[in-house]
Amino acid sequence: MADINSKFDIGVTTGPIRGSKKVHVGPLGVAMREIALEGGEAPVRVYDTSGPYTDSDAQIDIRKGLPQLRREWQIARGDVEEYTAREVKPEDNGQLGPDRSGGVPAFPNVRKTVLRAKPGGNISQMHYAKRGIITPEMEYVAERENLGRERIARELDGNSWGAEIPEYVTPEFVRDELARGRAIIPSNVNHPEAEPMAIGRNFLVKINANIGNSAVASDVASEVDKMVWSIRWGADTVMDLSTGRNIHDTREWIIRNSPVPIGTVPIYQALEKVGGIAEDLTWEIFRDTLIEQAEQGVDYFTIHAGVRLPYIPMTAKRVTGIVSRGGSIMAKWCLAHHKESFLYERFDEITEIMKAYDIAYSLGDGLRPGSIADANDEAQFAELYTLGELTKRAWEQDVQVMIEGPGHVPMHKIKENMDKQLEACGEAPFYTLGPLVTDIAPGYDHITSGIGAAQIGWYGTAMLCYVTPKEHLGLPDRDDVKVGVVTYKLAAHAADLAKGHPAAKVRDDALSKARFEFRWRDQFNLSLDPDTAEQYHDQTLPAEGAKTAHFCSMCGPKFCSMKITQEVRDFAAKQNSDSYLAATAPVEDAEEGMGEMAAKYRDGGDLYVSADD
Amino acid sequence: MADINSKFDIGVTTGPIRGSKKVHVGPLGVAMREIALEGGEAPVRVYDTSGPYTDSDAQIDIRKGLPQLRREWQIARGDVEEYTAREVKPEDNGQLGPDRSGGVPAFPNVRKTVLRAKPGGNISQMHYAKRGIITPEMEYVAERENLGRERIARELDGNSWGAEIPEYVTPEFVRDELARGRAIIPSNVNHPEAEPMAIGRNFLVKINANIGNSAVASDVASEVDKMVWSIRWGADTVMDLSTGRNIHDTREWIIRNSPVPIGTVPIYQALEKVGGIAEDLTWEIFRDTLIEQAEQGVDYFTIHAGVRLPYIPMTAKRVTGIVSRGGSIMAKWCLAHHKESFLYERFDEITEIMKAYDIAYSLGDGLRPGSIADANDEAQFAELYTLGELTKRAWEQDVQVMIEGPGHVPMHKIKENMDKQLEACGEAPFYTLGPLVTDIAPGYDHITSGIGAAQIGWYGTAMLCYVTPKEHLGLPDRDDVKVGVVTYKLAAHAADLAKGHPAAKVRDDALSKARFEFRWRDQFNLSLDPDTAEQYHDQTLPAEGAKTAHFCSMCGPKFCSMKITQEVRDFAAKQNSDSYLAATAPVEDAEEGMGEMAAKYRDGGDLYVSADD
Repeated sequence: MADINSKFDIGVTTGPIRGSKKVHVGPLGVAMREIALEGGEAPVRVYDTSGPYTDSDAQIDIRKGLPQLRREWQIARGDVEEYTAREVKPEDNGQLGPDRSGGVPAFPNVRKTVLRAKPGGNISQMHYAKRGIITPEMEYVAERENLGRERIARELDGNSWGAEIPEYVTPEFVRDELARGRAIIPSNVNHPEAEPMAIGRNFLVKINANIGNSAVASDVASEVDKMVWSIRWGADTVMDLSTGRNIHDTREWIIRNSPVPIGTVPIYQALEKVGGIAEDLTWEIFRDTLIEQAEQGVDYFTIHAGVRLPYIPMTAKRVTGIVSRGGSIMAKWCLAHHKESFLYERFDEITEIMKAYDIAYSLGDGLRPGSIADANDEAQFAELYTLGELTKRAWEQDVQVMIEGPGHVPMHKIKENMDKQLEACGEAPFYTLGPLVTDIAPGYDHITSGIGAAQIGWYGTAMLCYVTPKEHLGLPDRDDVKVGVVTYKLAAHAADLAKGHPAAKVRDDALSKARFEFRWRDQFNLSLDPDTAEQYHDQTLPAEGAKTAHFCSMCGPKFCSMKITQEVRDFAAKQNSDSYLAATAPVEDAEEGMGEMAAKYRDGGDLYVSADD
Repeated sequence: MADINSKFDIGVTTGPIRGSKKVHVGPLGVAMREIALEGGEAPVRVYDTSGPYTDSDAQIDIRKGLPQLRREWQIARGDVEEYTAREVKPEDNGQLGPDRSGGVPAFPNVRKTVLRAKPGGNISQMHYAKRGIITPEMEYVAERENLGRERIARELDGNSWGAEIPEYVTPEFVRDELARGRAIIPSNVNHPEAEPMAIGRNFLVKINANIGNSAVASDVASEVDKMVWSIRWGADTVMDLSTGRNIHDTREWIIRNSPVPIGTVPIYQALEKVGGIAEDLTWEIFRDTLIEQAEQGVDYFTIHAGVRLPYIPMTAKRVTGIVSRGGSIMAKWCLAHHKESFLYERFDEITEIMKAYDIAYSLGDGLRPGSIADANDEAQFAELYTLGELTKRAWEQDVQVMIEGPGHVPMHKIKENMDKQLEACGEAPFYTLGPLVTDIAPGYDHITSGIGAAQIGWYGTAMLCYVTPKEHLGLPDRDDVKVGVVTYKLAAHAADLAKGHPAAKVRDDALSKARFEFRWRDQFNLSLDPDTAEQYHDQTLPAEGAKTAHFCSMCGPKFCSMKITQEVRDFAAKQNSDSYLAATAPVEDAEEGMGEMAAKYRDGGDLYVSADD
């Protein structure tokens, strides 16, 4: 692990996750992680978001940035122009300009020229998809979603609530999902370092990690480290929610070194440019901020265009009013000027910018509920239906869209959120924050929200925005980021299992088999967090021998259910249990069927029917 | 906090949870916790499982044990006899007898005489209930479940999946639920220290914490401390799953000092008495163990009587076979002797013992699935239907019953477990372990199981058995116990909210209001773990001033959505938003309704309709 203490030495964690190695699959060399197993078991391939940082062959230089994986594909399409980027202004780093004392050097390797669509053009993946073009990005996604599976039939076990998950993902399937707006591939032309990934209800459920410094804490070194750390454990996208000073420079460091799509909330930076006074925001300042971030390579923008003037008073009677930062900024602007939101009024102009760089919309839920009491109320759904209206307007220009969702919602009201979103937004991908299923556990809100996230992920949410243990209390540190990411990975995986994703169960089965066979190292290595799993094991049984022991600390050597089960298995095998099993009644009338068997036994009959009978 | 380091000094954590005090409500002085709030807000009463340990007026002497709250009630019924307890045998502490070197002194204040029903009598709460008798235990439970609420109408918001949750709990309602077998009050006559509590689908969802030493680790001091620690954070019952040596003495220390019902798995101790050789178990040794534990005061016994000989081969093809310790012991015994389980054969004799002491059955799910792959299979449901058959046999003798459930189950298969249990077991309370919704997160299984627990609790499970971060890896320490308990408290509370329990939402609303009004201390004190909440807050903003600051570290002073919302609220109030709200369209046609409003605005009409118009 590199040193991350010195403020000006931007160090990050590199090297493979224990027990696994990076492999590159298919003609495009799609990156995956392969976990080697003991006892002659076949290795298991898992979805890998960590980029070159876990590739032992890769050379990492944070000051240079990552290789430009997608650059050739972009140029080859012949529909982009190169031009000189907008000059960085002092206020891009906050009203007072950059603060070099705070541990924020400017990125040394800024590109002077950037790309955009040729005049009047559209380079969005949705645009290509609608014209029947399968891009390398789509091919990459198809390979990636298959986790390197061969095209083999797999029993589909699950309830997908109407999703149309294919047994095998083809590039054509990806294209069709993009064309229908049911999935997006966030891919700003100026972020060629990103490995293509899809967000959609018919693909693996994704998770997002939020990072970013604030007015009161944090510096660029730790934010870059958090980005690399969060993708190491499985973050599929990262949002830079920085506020205060140094926003521009921090974002440059993050994007140039990020193999996953980066999202932002541009209104945050615009607000900094006007010294934090919401009323002083103007369309011109906001538009200039969009261009600034588009040229840096932000892959999706959260735009709170659904916070309309008429909806604002609907929040007045709420227990927690408006809890979305962007939402409250726009609410204040609307009330102060007594005008409709300029984000709503200028929506089509914003869309023009999005399509020139292929930036995806993440339509913000500025009126999401901030408490159980406010869930599913009038303000929330009024905004949702407006987001549906805006989705269709963006689609008219072939711009990719996802929809942000709550928030705080009790379990019995979660499904209504999914159902209304599917109906209002034409199946555009849903991207929810949790939801938290109770308000009473600050310090444990990664769990209260993980419960809601697993459920809404099962119902159809395409990406889950993580929540850390520090939610409502403070800024997450490195450990909080890891706990948040792992919690959301397990929630997303639980959703994939319940939806019946063909590839999901492979890893559970491999881990459980390892557990049953006391392959401790395999059990650790197959887990989402091998280091923690081994550390917990060693706290009770540190001896290296215990790693191969056929018992564990819960029962001890004499008293092991798994060991006894093996004896049961051997015994049953001896007794032709197969023919016995065939003879037993189905579960439905198990009681009766078993009663018969027991009676048969009591009458002195053989317990097991020999195969020869 | 008392010293818990010295092996022979059995110290425990005492004193009130911060920000709250113990109150005693009603004629029976039912213990509750009252959280004081700032800003003139009324205090909030919460369900309290912590016993005298959090009562600043209580004198705690672990060597004496707790006061005998229920003793008078028991004697007053005039149906019990006092007799000399069975002599403690060396093998009661394991085949080699007690190990005094291991930090296990004998309890100094053992009762020489114990109670049981007069010959042929039945002192179970179910027996009284069926005869129309309302006991003090039932009255205590009614008061406790109401959380000190007055009888006031409350909007019932939730989906209880067919449960019949009353708006207000009366003693007669408790009696009726017990008589119907839909709820139990575990209350061994020899555990008069216990505060009565109910486990049933129409009451608050309860949680259980497992403690106990094993053959390879732990000592009595830390187990007693863990018991007190687990109830401090909200464990409603505690199971002592000790194995290895010192089982009898450890249990005595725990029961004498426990204000919550204690459960055990007697087969564990019986196995120790025969040196861990399952085949050597006999009905006589098992029966003697039941009497031994009945006289000590164990409130419920896990009995794996559903693991029948014919079902065992059904587990042979499983990925993880039999993972229940009790289940595997009985499976081995059945196969070794080629006989039906003596627990099944002798079930009615066991019931005779249960009713003489009022011990409740916790019918064990010895064939529960140990992996996603084995969920809801033939073996699991075959056993469940047998547990249903046994439930009815126990009810014929008016003995209280609950049913244990899985385990490892993917989300889409959870509800089937609840539905089948309700059908097979006549609505006897369901008591599940999790379930874990994926196998791939060892080290985080409190979360994978908390997700399943919240869901099955919502569907109708009456008590959730906690899982700690050490599950599958090692023995939980003090910190693991707390994390496990808090995780399950929030899952149980989320279930109460979703079921629409009348008292559940009060605490969420109070905390959210405190959050919105920046009453930081109230937010901490209302949370399930005030200490952790404050500690996380202080990591970013340590200054005491920040406790009253009208902003937090996420946004900083200038950038606070809650602050902005207050301005929105003031503004809207000024503008007669009420009459405006009345004029807006319902959510269903929000888009249209809002469109009209916006149009009205664009046409130059006033945004807000004055109340005078």
